[in-house]
Amino acid sequence: MAIALVCPGRTTHLWIDLLKAQDPSLQVDVWPDLVPGRLYEMAITWNHPPGSLAAIPGLKCVSSLGAGVDHIMFDETFPEGIPVTRIVDAGLATEMAEYVTLMTLVFKRELFSHLERQRARIWRKDAATKQDRVLAVGVMGVGEMGSAIIRSLTALEIPVVGWSRTTRHPQLSRSYAGPNEFRDFLGATNILVCALPLYRETEGILCRETFYSLPHGSYVINVGRGRHLIEEDLLSALDDGQVAHAALDVFRTEPLPEEHPFWSHPHILLTTHIAAITRPENVARQLVENYHRVCANEPLLNTVDRSRGY
Amino acid sequence: MAIALVCPGRTTHLWIDLLKAQDPSLQVDVWPDLVPGRLYEMAITWNHPPGSLAAIPGLKCVSSLGAGVDHIMFDETFPEGIPVTRIVDAGLATEMAEYVTLMTLVFKRELFSHLERQRARIWRKDAATKQDRVLAVGVMGVGEMGSAIIRSLTALEIPVVGWSRTTRHPQLSRSYAGPNEFRDFLGATNILVCALPLYRETEGILCRETFYSLPHGSYVINVGRGRHLIEEDLLSALDDGQVAHAALDVFRTEPLPEEHPFWSHPHILLTTHIAAITRPENVARQLVENYHRVCANEPLLNTVDRSRGY
Repeated sequence: MAIALVCPGRTTHLWIDLLKAQDPSLQVDVWPDLVPGRLYEMAITWNHPPGSLAAIPGLKCVSSLGAGVDHIMFDETFPEGIPVTRIVDAGLATEMAEYVTLMTLVFKRELFSHLERQRARIWRKDAATKQDRVLAVGVMGVGEMGSAIIRSLTALEIPVVGWSRTTRHPQLSRSYAGPNEFRDFLGATNILVCALPLYRETEGILCRETFYSLPHGSYVINVGRGRHLIEEDLLSALDDGQVAHAALDVFRTEPLPEEHPFWSHPHILLTTHIAAITRPENVARQLVENYHRVCANEPLLNTVDRSRGY
Repeated sequence: MAIALVCPGRTTHLWIDLLKAQDPSLQVDVWPDLVPGRLYEMAITWNHPPGSLAAIPGLKCVSSLGAGVDHIMFDETFPEGIPVTRIVDAGLATEMAEYVTLMTLVFKRELFSHLERQRARIWRKDAATKQDRVLAVGVMGVGEMGSAIIRSLTALEIPVVGWSRTTRHPQLSRSYAGPNEFRDFLGATNILVCALPLYRETEGILCRETFYSLPHGSYVINVGRGRHLIEEDLLSALDDGQVAHAALDVFRTEPLPEEHPFWSHPHILLTTHIAAITRPENVARQLVENYHRVCANEPLLNTVDRSRGY
């Protein structure tokens, strides 16, 4: 009876301490140093190497360390029939809403123009706000993250429209759903936020066609996953001015390679996957609870619909 | 029967058009070109030269073009007994809340550190957020502006404390009032927001004693008035690191003189009095309504308590 921690490149001792604080009797081993012959009922993973989970003996469930499970779903070798669970952390959604609100206001209130005017010692009151030029913030993904974003922007009376591949947002007056309504949604927003989960149907959704369905000079904020974005399509839309500025927190390759053109692009504001960070202390309880459930053959919490992909 | 527009340095033709759109029969003259012998029941003013209002014949009420009336109250020559009214514009409070939320998040989420890391191509995930180091945003002034700010920050689940010279904020669990509770209030916040009206008792409230009652390394956001701030006290508190960073939208002298040290200070984010801008189209109706009331000897809307000063 043991847990395998499969999080290469991450420090694991804090996680082990927190898990054991919940249940001192736990046996937690860190991949790749698993003990031969030992069975691991549960794997806790973040960016595991494809194939590594399939090789763990005794596996009865896999839990993602974060809200996203795309790293598991995209692993073709991952055995069917093993349930996948994810972390539900209200704090994550709040942090995400903070980040998106910050970037929305940076664009809406033209913070960079103010910084430039300060550098040049120019006192100007007019044209100081994009206030009247914001159609609406368009939030793609209306789940836990998207809803927190919508709540925060609505409190500021910023108009918001939502889109999701499958469902309409229940509280939003202007909510779009499905591929057929995607173009109408894009036409109604000039600050586009991607807060979608990543799965086959959303991969590459931030592409040329999407950018050119927005009004000219729109803004793009990606807090989903790097693979939502076709990088060269963003660069050429920025060159055209079709996209005025982008704020990116996630990338296809992380850490972002030093020679990547995003680093020095004057119209890209880049942060290093910090929009919302899972706090170990908030989630250790959920992980151990699910471990006890899997050992007792009880139903798991926060399972992922594997056919849907998230 | 006429209105005098006393707003030196401002373009007035838009105002005249908007007022006449409400009532085409209005006679509106622009100070100093008033018509000799004509009586002006109402003056609409922004930063009038002291003494100019007292010299206007027939004056029965004065309306500020903005939410602030300090420019009128500080004019010692302004005749007692003439009622003063101000603009109540919900849009102003919303814009103010946007600005304060933006600056709060710039500090809380360390936007400037992210911009520096991007310039240096440094991928770092740790220490990326001041998240756990924000005690609470402390909002001074819990009127229309302060309440909108509190509402917006609360939607983001950011802890907020309030202080006002006279009243406690009704919805806030941690609300302080009066000079006796000022020090306790300051000890409970590390992002201090001044959204106070300016009058004798609040002038210079952002001073050395205030700054040193905050925890070391706090932030200051001034969206009140330039005269709330003792400028040299802020500069020395910034030198000490007692105040880590300040965002200032208002100044003792506006436009801020080109040689002023604020322009180039590395820990001052300076904007040019754009946090919330009165929108003529929103307020013309209120002004004309009060003009009709004063002509008909009816009670005025949104009068200011002159003994209180705001």
